[in-house]
Amino acid sequence: MEEHDHLAHERNKAEFEVNDMKIVWAGSRQAFEVSNRMSRLVASDPVFEKSNRAVMTRKELFKNTLRKSVHAWKLINELPLSDEESLMLRSFMDQPGFMDLHWRMFVPAIKGQGTEEQKQKWLSLANKMQIIGCYAQTELGHGSNVQGLETTATFDPQTDQFIMHSPTQTSSKWWPGGLGKVSTHAVVYARLITNGKDHGVHGFIVQLRNLDDHSPLPGITIGDIGVKFGNGAYNSMDNGFLMFDKFCIPRDQMLMRLAKVTREGKYVPSDVPRQLMYGTMVSVRQTIVSNASIAMARAVCIATRYSAVRRQFGSQNGGIETQVIDYKTQQNRLFPLLASAYAFRFVGEWLKWLYTDVTQRLEASDFATLPEAHACTAGLKSMTTSATSDGIEECRKLCGGHGYLWCSGLPELFAVYVPACTYEGDNVVLQLQVARFLMKIVSQLGSGKAPAGTTAYMGRAKHLLQCHSSIRKAEDWLNPAMVLEAFEARALRMAVSCANNLSKFENQEQGFSELLADLVEAAIAHCQLIVVSKFIDKINGEIKGKGVKNQLKNLCYIYALHLIHKHLGDFLSTNTITSEQASLASQQLRSLYSQLRPNAIALVDAFDYTDHYLGSVLGRYDGNVYPKLFEEALKDPLNDSVVPDGYHEYIRPLIKQHLRSARL
Amino acid sequence: MEEHDHLAHERNKAEFEVNDMKIVWAGSRQAFEVSNRMSRLVASDPVFEKSNRAVMTRKELFKNTLRKSVHAWKLINELPLSDEESLMLRSFMDQPGFMDLHWRMFVPAIKGQGTEEQKQKWLSLANKMQIIGCYAQTELGHGSNVQGLETTATFDPQTDQFIMHSPTQTSSKWWPGGLGKVSTHAVVYARLITNGKDHGVHGFIVQLRNLDDHSPLPGITIGDIGVKFGNGAYNSMDNGFLMFDKFCIPRDQMLMRLAKVTREGKYVPSDVPRQLMYGTMVSVRQTIVSNASIAMARAVCIATRYSAVRRQFGSQNGGIETQVIDYKTQQNRLFPLLASAYAFRFVGEWLKWLYTDVTQRLEASDFATLPEAHACTAGLKSMTTSATSDGIEECRKLCGGHGYLWCSGLPELFAVYVPACTYEGDNVVLQLQVARFLMKIVSQLGSGKAPAGTTAYMGRAKHLLQCHSSIRKAEDWLNPAMVLEAFEARALRMAVSCANNLSKFENQEQGFSELLADLVEAAIAHCQLIVVSKFIDKINGEIKGKGVKNQLKNLCYIYALHLIHKHLGDFLSTNTITSEQASLASQQLRSLYSQLRPNAIALVDAFDYTDHYLGSVLGRYDGNVYPKLFEEALKDPLNDSVVPDGYHEYIRPLIKQHLRSARL
Repeated sequence: MEEHDHLAHERNKAEFEVNDMKIVWAGSRQAFEVSNRMSRLVASDPVFEKSNRAVMTRKELFKNTLRKSVHAWKLINELPLSDEESLMLRSFMDQPGFMDLHWRMFVPAIKGQGTEEQKQKWLSLANKMQIIGCYAQTELGHGSNVQGLETTATFDPQTDQFIMHSPTQTSSKWWPGGLGKVSTHAVVYARLITNGKDHGVHGFIVQLRNLDDHSPLPGITIGDIGVKFGNGAYNSMDNGFLMFDKFCIPRDQMLMRLAKVTREGKYVPSDVPRQLMYGTMVSVRQTIVSNASIAMARAVCIATRYSAVRRQFGSQNGGIETQVIDYKTQQNRLFPLLASAYAFRFVGEWLKWLYTDVTQRLEASDFATLPEAHACTAGLKSMTTSATSDGIEECRKLCGGHGYLWCSGLPELFAVYVPACTYEGDNVVLQLQVARFLMKIVSQLGSGKAPAGTTAYMGRAKHLLQCHSSIRKAEDWLNPAMVLEAFEARALRMAVSCANNLSKFENQEQGFSELLADLVEAAIAHCQLIVVSKFIDKINGEIKGKGVKNQLKNLCYIYALHLIHKHLGDFLSTNTITSEQASLASQQLRSLYSQLRPNAIALVDAFDYTDHYLGSVLGRYDGNVYPKLFEEALKDPLNDSVVPDGYHEYIRPLIKQHLRSARL
Repeated sequence: MEEHDHLAHERNKAEFEVNDMKIVWAGSRQAFEVSNRMSRLVASDPVFEKSNRAVMTRKELFKNTLRKSVHAWKLINELPLSDEESLMLRSFMDQPGFMDLHWRMFVPAIKGQGTEEQKQKWLSLANKMQIIGCYAQTELGHGSNVQGLETTATFDPQTDQFIMHSPTQTSSKWWPGGLGKVSTHAVVYARLITNGKDHGVHGFIVQLRNLDDHSPLPGITIGDIGVKFGNGAYNSMDNGFLMFDKFCIPRDQMLMRLAKVTREGKYVPSDVPRQLMYGTMVSVRQTIVSNASIAMARAVCIATRYSAVRRQFGSQNGGIETQVIDYKTQQNRLFPLLASAYAFRFVGEWLKWLYTDVTQRLEASDFATLPEAHACTAGLKSMTTSATSDGIEECRKLCGGHGYLWCSGLPELFAVYVPACTYEGDNVVLQLQVARFLMKIVSQLGSGKAPAGTTAYMGRAKHLLQCHSSIRKAEDWLNPAMVLEAFEARALRMAVSCANNLSKFENQEQGFSELLADLVEAAIAHCQLIVVSKFIDKINGEIKGKGVKNQLKNLCYIYALHLIHKHLGDFLSTNTITSEQASLASQQLRSLYSQLRPNAIALVDAFDYTDHYLGSVLGRYDGNVYPKLFEEALKDPLNDSVVPDGYHEYIRPLIKQHLRSARL
């Protein structure tokens, strides 16, 4: 039987060439080809089957992850795959596991903080996976505040060793992925103590388990921290705890690129600039922003396709009902999320460039742009992950009742995604860092030091503080300069207003603490400006393919104008725009939704996700939702028998009024 | 060893008598006593243990639910318990199961729609649970739109039976709780067809399973719809599907209070007013609003207690860190949710009164207040459940990384709560109903017909459209009349603005469709006004207990002022308040947070939740969080062995570089 495409009529409506959009989304033809090839390689390999995850016990799920990870590693070596391909393969595998931590945290930590000798020794083992490593930083009682870590590494000059110790229960390492059951080694962060002096937190390479039988080494207590949010989600991962009882490691296992401890126990900082470490942070957060666009796109793809399949109300005389995607309320909630997926994609792309730029400058010992790059990535990490978490849940709600089914893919996507709001910097804490940076920039205005990069607009403070938006009709909101000015003026005015309010406090820190909530809002306004401006840069550049640019323009304005509506209080209270101009923005937004509507399905097709990766019956490419929902239901173990287990013990005694015979 | 209360220092700070607040929260001393007694009865009974739910398979969880339900029923009969006590007991059992549908949907449907004979026959069976019933309305392809249901009940005059039939796959009943594996009977909604004529959707009592061996009757296909969101959550429930293949039921199993079918197949509507049915809807939605306050309170209780336990940053010279509850960013997110829990509690209490009032009027054939009561409950159901879903997730984030652990209780609370946004009317669809009602009221202004009840304020349209807020200093925001006027003016102006925009369209329905998003916002503004006004009524009434009223006043203003901040765009764009007045509201809000701070723990203690009910290590009454997190972790099956299952098949071959021996 031929496969029928229930969404063909939607695909035919598209006013642009979807294959060209796929390349824009992927970033380049080469990136598209790798991603396309790897996603299909994973989808076609039965070992990577994932639709059965919901009915696995935790132990089965964990073992299944081991199997998939090792199978992936085998493919990577046998085919063989390039680094780029391997990364893609693991990502399409779509199941959190120890490999993520080994490659994304353990190996980079050694690369970034190890000396040449250390890199030579440990990376040769790690690169072949002869050892498996994780990244043990957070503790039971210490998350965001790295400087508050309690684990100690005390140098013992007699034995030339560090004594790793967990002085309290709250000092237990807690959360590191891969630690609980798999890792043989870890990079452990601990307070370095030599000659009774605390030199703050440093990294150490610590072997955790015997390489012959995998048992934890004496002095090490280790285990899994238990079940997490969701059914599958991160429960495939052995997030772990770790306690040291005076566990000794050789002196040369302290990561010594930035500072070393001599045989005598002397602490000697190196001349390698500490700022280099921030480069890594920029890199990690850039990846998180890219992943936000991937996750948002996934949720939006599911919700958009199902909104075209699903029909409710609106039938005339018993005829066919209206596709829910045709309702303005649906469009008003869904299309801004679709636009956000694209917006985050392009700002992520730009962050990749920023990271390269920062790295080159760091290598040339130019640290000037680092604070700005750091603030910008911290803020974008926070803003995009918060929006994506909320967006996934909104997409789930947009699918109505069926979005609550595990097989819709959305509950799991939410559960696996939300930690991004907390890890690598709690989102609110990060926005406060951005706010502090902005306050510094504001305080330097007029000092002759021109703000650069994403804060360059603040150099035009005089104009931005007094300008009036020249929007006069709805179409003016399609003028990039006018849109940008509104976002710049709003962001600047909020920052300046915070600075003014801060200056009323005698004690700056108390003022900062009192105004935290306003400062966070100012930081978010700044970050939204960055995303809007990078999207505008994108549509001002060269874009190939029939109709593609037009679609991106629509998405860009939808992204910007929905933010104006959502944060209308900001724009009005700073007098950036008038109520009438806001109302014109809403009017323009409705018109943009109508223009987007026929292109909606093709715009999510452009993400090029396989049905395997989407993992959603509602989001199936062919739109054949309802028969497949039945198929999924029938797989549930509860349907193994018609009369359920428990009937004789409980249901029968109840209805036969023989409760005494019930097994209670 | 004596139990140590780690939060005693917080409890000592309270400026009010917590025992009196418990009674205010419960509604009366009697209600408090029942709730207190039942929650402790459940907590002390080992059958009701629930901390092990995360590691159960679906089948185990389902069977465990059968056991708990039947045990509860046994207690209810043996102790015996009153109806009020039974309801409380089942609610504190805190595990969705078939009993909920039997008592809350099946029995009330027969009571409301059955004739006296039908009630006599079926209720006597149902009340003793000799039959178990569910409520089969929604279909695979039809959720919100009840009029679009496809299942047919065709009267066959030859056999004097209805032939129940599912003509398509999308007509399968899909979602009903208790249907999949347990129910012996169902109230099924189907299109009634007699003599070839479709009389629309009616209810029928249908036996599903053989009472001797529980096998589905011939002509009935039935099963479970599969795994849902979360780990435990609604997976304890057998939400089911049901298809009829020309299944016959006797004529007298159509619920015939509103209309009957005669022996000859004649359709005869009764003279019982159809409006009576809306009374039931008001009742169901009132319960949902009450449950919103319960769920919100639960999440807030967990997040508040853990925010007092958890410390991050702010230590001076290595001293103790700051409790996170002392940060303004934390207060700014947490305290409005605490205020919302109280606000929803009081509006729920008022809805109970409204339901009684409506019922009395209906019995006297006074239908005048019904549309207003209906719109008001629909809107409040929508507004409170949306806010609660978001609030639970916000509370989870407020707990930092540990909120992601299952044992924090919050992932599960979210997963089990979110369906409230969809069932009994999708939240957006409901607000559109409210909006339609508001548009009607606006159109009648000046017609001499004075708006009543919660829309009475619209009768003062002339004043509210032109008034200027007289707020001049921050303290003015503690003036209930000024606060109320701001909410009334905002709601009215938004409704009138929608009506004006609608009038620009030639086709009203097209205009309504185009402006859906604005209409939803106007409806929400109206609902928020109701909640604020009922909270103000509460604090204007008599409230006993030392300091209690003061606390409620603070909570009331926090609730109102945080809404002004959140929806600032509405207030400014309607010129209800100025930017300066908004800024005074923010200032007052900060001051209210400081006043609330010392009372925070006592305010959540007032909910009187047991540790069993909360089901959260982070929210423990005694604040002894960290040692208990360890205890929970050690219970995970992954920790049964030090070396995990899968080591020999996968990990060892990997690190020993013998991938060929791996079991892939």
